[in-house]
Amino acid sequence: MNQQEALYQYTLRLGDNALILGHRLSEWTSKAPLLEEDLALGNLALDLLGQANSLLEYAGKTEGKGRSQDDLAYKRAEREFLNNLLVELPNGDFGFTIVRQFLYSTFALFLYEELSKSKDEQIAAIAAKSLKEIKYHVRHSSDWMLRLGDGTEESHNRVQKSLNDIWMYTGELFEMNEVDAILIKAGIAADLNAIKQKWSSKIEEVLSQATLKRPQDAFMQTGSRKGIHTEYLGFILAEMQYLPRAYPTAKW
Amino acid sequence: MNQQEALYQYTLRLGDNALILGHRLSEWTSKAPLLEEDLALGNLALDLLGQANSLLEYAGKTEGKGRSQDDLAYKRAEREFLNNLLVELPNGDFGFTIVRQFLYSTFALFLYEELSKSKDEQIAAIAAKSLKEIKYHVRHSSDWMLRLGDGTEESHNRVQKSLNDIWMYTGELFEMNEVDAILIKAGIAADLNAIKQKWSSKIEEVLSQATLKRPQDAFMQTGSRKGIHTEYLGFILAEMQYLPRAYPTAKW
Repeated sequence: MNQQEALYQYTLRLGDNALILGHRLSEWTSKAPLLEEDLALGNLALDLLGQANSLLEYAGKTEGKGRSQDDLAYKRAEREFLNNLLVELPNGDFGFTIVRQFLYSTFALFLYEELSKSKDEQIAAIAAKSLKEIKYHVRHSSDWMLRLGDGTEESHNRVQKSLNDIWMYTGELFEMNEVDAILIKAGIAADLNAIKQKWSSKIEEVLSQATLKRPQDAFMQTGSRKGIHTEYLGFILAEMQYLPRAYPTAKW
Repeated sequence: MNQQEALYQYTLRLGDNALILGHRLSEWTSKAPLLEEDLALGNLALDLLGQANSLLEYAGKTEGKGRSQDDLAYKRAEREFLNNLLVELPNGDFGFTIVRQFLYSTFALFLYEELSKSKDEQIAAIAAKSLKEIKYHVRHSSDWMLRLGDGTEESHNRVQKSLNDIWMYTGELFEMNEVDAILIKAGIAADLNAIKQKWSSKIEEVLSQATLKRPQDAFMQTGSRKGIHTEYLGFILAEMQYLPRAYPTAKW
């Protein structure tokens, strides 16, 4: 694998995470339990879809085969998506969505902080721009972790259960492969072991304030680095890709 | 009917239009034919849901029975909704959504311009703030009217058909009743006959540039001022209200 191919795959990985989580969050729009929260989740969704747009556009340019961000979003098969399994998990109840967001956004925060110093100027620019949004996502989801965890007995129990259920999808966020090796060497990508240290401390801190227990690191799901996904991704893509695939040459 | 009751109903009418159209647009998120357009429609949806939030909050205060914007959005029955029929029409294809948006946003533009001078300070403030967003909605939908109308033969025919189908829902936007009479006298509401003049000129101008024909003013649908809706509103409410109704006392 050469550096260009590694950069293409790495950018896809980042873009697919934003695209799929943005899609998931957009499912909440007009269905959140409060109008204010509806707006907040909608804004998070649009932030992520905006990040996906920039990242997939750059992935297309890096690939050099003339594919646009729309080609990459709407015309790839499931096995070609490189997003983490965590972001494709169904929304569940509001607490589940918040736990998923908190775990992911905290990961993205430390990752993008590093990437904003990347030697690849385009990656650095997208990361720096996204970072402002991601900081808000961390704050918003952390605030809800505290309110739900340290709230009523029911909200505490439900959010603890969500945390226990999601935990096995967190290991995969930090997996590295040849792509990472090539790009870390070139000063483009970030060492995910270092990110994991920071992520763990921050997660511990918020969970402890929220009176929640950090689950044990036991069995961890894996697969996305090789394009192997949960059963849920296929349904997301079916919905998202239906229109562009039905009218492949449509300009509108 | 006293002025307070009229103001409550008037504010509900404005808020319900924004809420229902915002809900409709949010159905596009992650399903638009292009990522860029996905973001644009998502932003329009959030603008409208934000306007709905402010307007329904104020409606609740005006009513004086302690109901919040969430109570009004999630706990009213279909017959209590005062939005125009136009905004509850299903999205159809992208062209249909654009025609609906163009006709509605142009109406909202001229209405809110007047309302920003309302003697009711709260209405004036909400209208002034919303106006910035609505100007963009008019520009965005007008641009698409031109691209689709003056585009390919297929896009022209499809958008002309949408226009013909939607036209019978435009008459109702300008209907006035006792609520309007009371509030116009008090300098709070706008005379919809005057709005209709401006709306007609602007619509004619854009349609002519877009090589589209303005449909004849024939039979016009009516009903929303009395809470009578199309068959579609019930489905929208079923989806939107499911969660809050299933957990009525949930704080999250």
